[in-house]
Amino acid sequence: MDGARPVNPGSSPRTRVRRYPELAVKDPEALYRILDAGLMAHVAVTDETGQPYAVPVAYARHDDTVLFHGSTASRLFRLCAAGSPVCFTVTLLDGLVLARSAFESSMNYRSVMVLGHCGVLHGAAKQAALEQISEHLMPGRWKEVRQPSAQELRATAVLELPLAECSAKVSEGGPDDNESDLGLPVWAGHVPLTESWSEPVPADGLPAEFSTVPDYIRSWRR
Amino acid sequence: MDGARPVNPGSSPRTRVRRYPELAVKDPEALYRILDAGLMAHVAVTDETGQPYAVPVAYARHDDTVLFHGSTASRLFRLCAAGSPVCFTVTLLDGLVLARSAFESSMNYRSVMVLGHCGVLHGAAKQAALEQISEHLMPGRWKEVRQPSAQELRATAVLELPLAECSAKVSEGGPDDNESDLGLPVWAGHVPLTESWSEPVPADGLPAEFSTVPDYIRSWRR
Repeated sequence: MDGARPVNPGSSPRTRVRRYPELAVKDPEALYRILDAGLMAHVAVTDETGQPYAVPVAYARHDDTVLFHGSTASRLFRLCAAGSPVCFTVTLLDGLVLARSAFESSMNYRSVMVLGHCGVLHGAAKQAALEQISEHLMPGRWKEVRQPSAQELRATAVLELPLAECSAKVSEGGPDDNESDLGLPVWAGHVPLTESWSEPVPADGLPAEFSTVPDYIRSWRR
Repeated sequence: MDGARPVNPGSSPRTRVRRYPELAVKDPEALYRILDAGLMAHVAVTDETGQPYAVPVAYARHDDTVLFHGSTASRLFRLCAAGSPVCFTVTLLDGLVLARSAFESSMNYRSVMVLGHCGVLHGAAKQAALEQISEHLMPGRWKEVRQPSAQELRATAVLELPLAECSAKVSEGGPDDNESDLGLPVWAGHVPLTESWSEPVPADGLPAEFSTVPDYIRSWRR
């Protein structure tokens, strides 16, 4: 990755926010916050026939890159690893906006889109990226679990995508009704959608001495 | 759409589930249930330069199709409307799987992927699709709101994608650790992730006579 290249959301013609430009996020820190709040991205890649695919991936942001992993046996991951153009999209759905007209009714969301070409990580950088992805999803977990074997590492492709060409949008709050609709006799507002962890479920046959859920898991907030 | 073509998840070479085939869903009803449970999809489409884009959309399933809409001014929607190959993916993240090894740690999810070409809806079919999308997201709302004007309809592209070539996967429950890892001294299990509606927030300036949140909104369950 090119560390000297600042993250500048929406600065390329391909990532300039044309639809509802007032929702565009320009501040890199705000873009980082969206990526850091998400658990899952969708990666789009196109095969040799021109068919695009959008697949869900776990990921983490590290500095000015996003990291994600998949199986080295996956055709789509091989396309990404070979340098095919990709689109990496994170969308956090925050609720529904109930306007007084069908047309103005919409969703609240935070989204980031990154375009570019992935690099393939190896060696210590690969190990570090796997830890970063794990710690993003399951903070505190990495030091507890058995580390990847050489065979497991060979089966895993770890990809890095720089945040060089990216955009972010945030839609929040209530409806933006037409002036002429404000008098309509209908409830208007928004309904927030929130995500939360439920009570952890122990694995079948977990020995009794490990039955207490560790504090680091209890401390996860969402 | 070809009503005579049965929905047969995973039946094409492009949609056969190769990674973890034991997670593949073969029952069309199970695939419908995943689509009916989701609020948002990611649609991937590739532009003339070969760059794929994955964009979030609101959608609904109707019989053996999915319906989604966007702005007629959007370059990506115009690509979809012109018949470019698309991939329509819905992923519901249900939790994290905490295995005893890093390699076996994973996510629980339900996902559907549909490949194909969109048709553009017009006239009564377009109106009906807009109602279906609205009622999927906001049941009971359509009859309350102002219906789309001719100008608003012209600004909206409504697309239909048949569920002809599709796949579905479900990953649920606890970890599938290696036999040799079962004795490791670490908590193992899974942590469910759930989505829920929060208290509706009235729009600024909502007249007092409409301040009671309607029952049909209160009845939404998630």
